[in-house]
Amino acid sequence: MPQSPSSNPNRDVRMRGFAQRSTVDEALAWLRPHWQPLGEETVSLAHAHDRILTRAVESGVNVPQFRRAMMDGFALQAADTQGATTYNRLTLNIIGEAWPGRPFEGQVTAGTTVRIMTGSPMPEGADAVLPVEKVEVDGQQVLLLDEIPPEKHVGRVGEDIAKASEVLPAGRRLRPQDLGVLSSVAVPEVPVVRRPRVRIVVTGNELLPAGTTPGPYEIVDANGPMLTALIERDGGEVLYPGIVPDDPQAITAALEDDCDVVLVSGGSSVGKEDFVPVLLADQGELAIHGIAMRPSSPAGMGKLGDRLVFLLPGNPVSCLCAYDFFAGPTIRAFGGRDSDWPYRSRPLPLARKLVSTVGRVDYARVLINDQDEVEPLAISGASILSSTTRASGFVIIPGDSEGYPPGADVDVYLYDQ
Amino acid sequence: MPQSPSSNPNRDVRMRGFAQRSTVDEALAWLRPHWQPLGEETVSLAHAHDRILTRAVESGVNVPQFRRAMMDGFALQAADTQGATTYNRLTLNIIGEAWPGRPFEGQVTAGTTVRIMTGSPMPEGADAVLPVEKVEVDGQQVLLLDEIPPEKHVGRVGEDIAKASEVLPAGRRLRPQDLGVLSSVAVPEVPVVRRPRVRIVVTGNELLPAGTTPGPYEIVDANGPMLTALIERDGGEVLYPGIVPDDPQAITAALEDDCDVVLVSGGSSVGKEDFVPVLLADQGELAIHGIAMRPSSPAGMGKLGDRLVFLLPGNPVSCLCAYDFFAGPTIRAFGGRDSDWPYRSRPLPLARKLVSTVGRVDYARVLINDQDEVEPLAISGASILSSTTRASGFVIIPGDSEGYPPGADVDVYLYDQ
Repeated sequence: MPQSPSSNPNRDVRMRGFAQRSTVDEALAWLRPHWQPLGEETVSLAHAHDRILTRAVESGVNVPQFRRAMMDGFALQAADTQGATTYNRLTLNIIGEAWPGRPFEGQVTAGTTVRIMTGSPMPEGADAVLPVEKVEVDGQQVLLLDEIPPEKHVGRVGEDIAKASEVLPAGRRLRPQDLGVLSSVAVPEVPVVRRPRVRIVVTGNELLPAGTTPGPYEIVDANGPMLTALIERDGGEVLYPGIVPDDPQAITAALEDDCDVVLVSGGSSVGKEDFVPVLLADQGELAIHGIAMRPSSPAGMGKLGDRLVFLLPGNPVSCLCAYDFFAGPTIRAFGGRDSDWPYRSRPLPLARKLVSTVGRVDYARVLINDQDEVEPLAISGASILSSTTRASGFVIIPGDSEGYPPGADVDVYLYDQ
Repeated sequence: MPQSPSSNPNRDVRMRGFAQRSTVDEALAWLRPHWQPLGEETVSLAHAHDRILTRAVESGVNVPQFRRAMMDGFALQAADTQGATTYNRLTLNIIGEAWPGRPFEGQVTAGTTVRIMTGSPMPEGADAVLPVEKVEVDGQQVLLLDEIPPEKHVGRVGEDIAKASEVLPAGRRLRPQDLGVLSSVAVPEVPVVRRPRVRIVVTGNELLPAGTTPGPYEIVDANGPMLTALIERDGGEVLYPGIVPDDPQAITAALEDDCDVVLVSGGSSVGKEDFVPVLLADQGELAIHGIAMRPSSPAGMGKLGDRLVFLLPGNPVSCLCAYDFFAGPTIRAFGGRDSDWPYRSRPLPLARKLVSTVGRVDYARVLINDQDEVEPLAISGASILSSTTRASGFVIIPGDSEGYPPGADVDVYLYDQ
């Protein structure tokens, strides 16, 4: 692949960074201690799907809240059923009906019964439900075909979930059915990890915003739309008011936006590649600049105030790679999520050899062919942009490996979820 | 688990349905022919992430659009480098600089060169780039240390992506990097499968909206919030203006809403359980009512006009099960997505036996314990609601199986993605 302009050795700051080129492990060792969930915020159930609980949630009510029928049948006094069989049908008088939300208001006494539906409040005086299969109805009377002990088919108050008991643990990623249960137990809102605010800073006077048609020497912003989708996938809140002009004041203002993470996607025109590293080195910390990996060797990271700042190369493939290695796990961890790769992996055999260089981590884009074999995609040469869309996923070749021979099984991380 | 009121044999329509109880396979056989993507709509790139392309997308431009430098170095005439070595340094005059978006406006002639950055337009007259590593700069002159053939380190117009060539195929689920590429190739909007409009119809006079605290005999809507999150996960657009009163006119109006799919979540109070099946049978088609499965045996489905209508049981666990089996794959297929289970599966050994009944499909909620064994959760008895949140996932026991012995490997579908 073409070298990034950042590797131009004529520029001091770059040299400073790249003379101290870090390994991926060193970069991660600096980064990992920052991977702590941000603070808490409270959201309503309507906005809680897929958010991460900061604390255990307790039930606001007993479930059930009232003694309720667990079967369709007849609410009665169990003592009245004693001795009932199909050969000894005992008779009770039906004095009413009980429905969910519409209880029977009277009293069940010896010799009487109330027709009841599952989920209905048990009438006063009744202590059991004889299922509808165990009776014959004869007008206003019911013939009992079986006997039943007290409390049979009656749900006790709080027997499913007791009021103030823990319903969901801290750290839970809320599932659709969790929202249903929380709603049932009268929990209107939940404490969740705050979403990281991520400022995208794309600079470049030659760049046009997405959705426009470029003039002769113009290029349309590719990294802004890509990063927006990646950040949203990873649970972050995107701050991207637009492309920032190649102007130190404008870039400084963007870097100082109210946020947790800044992703700087370098363009390639005069001076600006230097500016952010210099600003970080002077005003904050330029911890890593230049990483022994391919692509993305010009990537870097540091801090400005409380913000973590990532320097992502302008080339879209490199930008994606540096995001996947460093920015993505940070954003997920800030939001209380798993910092691991967000891609499923499959072990598959290589169709051809996959070469790398010792001392460098490779993020090799590959295609899975019709035989379920892994084809490495050309990562140098002309077809950079188109290879991005052709790749099924990628294989990581660690720094101590020269690559793998044909037929070797490799773990492919799949872009398609 | 407690029987649903729908199994009350005293109600005619239910009997009609349940006398013809279908198997899961029969229900799916009726449903599957409907699993076709809906029509097309056009969305901007900002809203295209994770949408499904209806047609192949072609590049709006050549990439590159202009002859460009692929390395940092010096744009020159290759003929001028002939014979250059570190021992035979040839000299050229630097007549300017070329940057991305800021081309050199003059002409490179024999004996002259232009300093150029990667990605910059090649100046007129130059036919190669000598990389910066192969020169020494001496004021306004550059000493060439190597020779180079014509076209070296020059990107040809359209060599990465030719204008009007296919960039992405029909059916593609758009990835973050796809959006970047589409933006680069000047595609401002894309044709995608329309999102299915899904109307949630939750009925029940005893139900309160999510976020409220129930009075003595009231219940808070659990299925509305759960279904909302499930539909959004599956790419549908949720129409849920609120709980519908137990009133035939209100329910009819809700069923006739402008939508592709209706999910009816039955409550359990007087009369309404009958109403929707009767309406479907009279005004449309009640294809399936009562299914040999557990839970969700009262589930059903049919059509009203062009809408597919699903009858989902009121019990949240049953509602989730019927959604996962029938409504979920339909919504995904309508949106052009995969109708398969949206859950990852893992083969794991059973800690205890898992029993079922021949002739019935079981959706058995299970817990994965600390030993990575599968513990079936009680599916009858009291703890219905709480079991929903305790489950790690579920195991499907097919209709021809009596279940599995301890130690047997079963595929667990994991709720947590």
